[in-house]
Amino acid sequence: MEIVKTVEAMQRTSEALRLAGKTIAFVPTMGFLHEGHLELMRVGKAHADTLVVSIFVNPTQFGPSEDYDRYPRDTEGDLAKARAVGADIVFFPAREEMYPDGFQTRVQVERVTRNLCGTARPGHFDGVAVVVAKLFNIVKPHLAVFGQKDYQQLTVISRMTADLNMDIQIVGVPTVREPDGLAMSSRNKYLNPEERQSALCLRKSMDLAETMFREGERDALAVRQAIEALINDHPHTRIDYVSLCDSTTLEDVARLGDETLLALAVKVGATRLIDNRLIRD
Amino acid sequence: MEIVKTVEAMQRTSEALRLAGKTIAFVPTMGFLHEGHLELMRVGKAHADTLVVSIFVNPTQFGPSEDYDRYPRDTEGDLAKARAVGADIVFFPAREEMYPDGFQTRVQVERVTRNLCGTARPGHFDGVAVVVAKLFNIVKPHLAVFGQKDYQQLTVISRMTADLNMDIQIVGVPTVREPDGLAMSSRNKYLNPEERQSALCLRKSMDLAETMFREGERDALAVRQAIEALINDHPHTRIDYVSLCDSTTLEDVARLGDETLLALAVKVGATRLIDNRLIRD
Repeated sequence: MEIVKTVEAMQRTSEALRLAGKTIAFVPTMGFLHEGHLELMRVGKAHADTLVVSIFVNPTQFGPSEDYDRYPRDTEGDLAKARAVGADIVFFPAREEMYPDGFQTRVQVERVTRNLCGTARPGHFDGVAVVVAKLFNIVKPHLAVFGQKDYQQLTVISRMTADLNMDIQIVGVPTVREPDGLAMSSRNKYLNPEERQSALCLRKSMDLAETMFREGERDALAVRQAIEALINDHPHTRIDYVSLCDSTTLEDVARLGDETLLALAVKVGATRLIDNRLIRD
Repeated sequence: MEIVKTVEAMQRTSEALRLAGKTIAFVPTMGFLHEGHLELMRVGKAHADTLVVSIFVNPTQFGPSEDYDRYPRDTEGDLAKARAVGADIVFFPAREEMYPDGFQTRVQVERVTRNLCGTARPGHFDGVAVVVAKLFNIVKPHLAVFGQKDYQQLTVISRMTADLNMDIQIVGVPTVREPDGLAMSSRNKYLNPEERQSALCLRKSMDLAETMFREGERDALAVRQAIEALINDHPHTRIDYVSLCDSTTLEDVARLGDETLLALAVKVGATRLIDNRLIRD
């Protein structure tokens, strides 16, 4: 497994691979890899000749009051995991390599960033869009793999890729979960045992919505209120949003149709967790 | 010469060329080709195996009160000229092919778009940036050629290309002029004979600044006031801006240094003309 630290070296490596007729799958990560990331890598590996993984905690997608500085990092562990799962190249740039002095370009996907995490985290998806645009131009992949846990992020990236005519296939991979249903996340390590227990309210909320839908409930407000009551019954929780929305535009719906996205963001203690499920027949 | 109308076909063509080891030079245009465009094409042709020219009047770079609808078009003439100069492929997409329903991504280069034409034409450079980003992803060139007449546009595109790590060499080509010094522009055709005469105030302004600089003048205000007086002496003119600025940041300077950009925008009759010169030893 090769470790590449500069933009220039990565571009030359990818260009040589493409010229040799090799296909490239790409998994961008912020490191602190867990089973969810490894699953993205396995999917990438299965679809291409070469698997490139990036590890970069992207400062531009963190708000001023967010956890950029304390975001968990474990470079040695990450490299071992990436190697074990068969990554061919790890792109591991320094912050200054990605954002040198004079940097001043924004990439903004407009409508699908307005709701859900876009409301709670202003500027977050601009940061995601710009770093992914950069990484795509650096790694030059044929396909890129993202987790469906970050449903809105996947939507933003799919939209940007289509709008800017990036010739890259975007592959979404179902969320990997702990045995009790908690979605894998690097931030789960922040939870103490009591909070870890309360964190199950997300999975339970999705089960509840699914059950209500199966029993014929179509009123979004009724479902949302039931979920809010369920979450509020769990200690240490504070709801950021409970949204029932169109799975493409991410705009709130009043009634559940053939396919509705339930998206949740809940603070458990100091840790913000997100999850989602498509509710459909 | 091949004419390609869809994004998909252009991407497949370029990908095949790259896989075959061919280099691609790209000249994006809005058509109504003149000698300035042809010079860009010759430069592109000299630097690569394949020359791709795009013809697309980009709606997103025109303001609501600007001349999108009446912007001059001459497809048959353009194709003949491109063929004569040796273009291999003309990419000629419809508006809906470039901006289908649901399009919602913006690309914004921040600081270098604030002054000069950025002030007079709000949103203009966002439109330029997004269409060039799209065209780069569609045509996949190794190098792209732009005229120095649109100095700020060249700066914006160079900055975007660097910031987003687009692996494309940006080549700037000196302005091609009429025998009397008027910069070639598709908009020159709007000028009636009297206005055409007044339009020479731009070239004369640059000569005046150059002379004052050679004679030791370093005060930007003095140079600017002399130019404004000169332009105002020409009938049918209205100054949009006369700027002496840093050639990289495009920020106004108080004193002329080793290299200062003089940038001009003047309305002559109803036609807005721009020109620029680097004033240096």
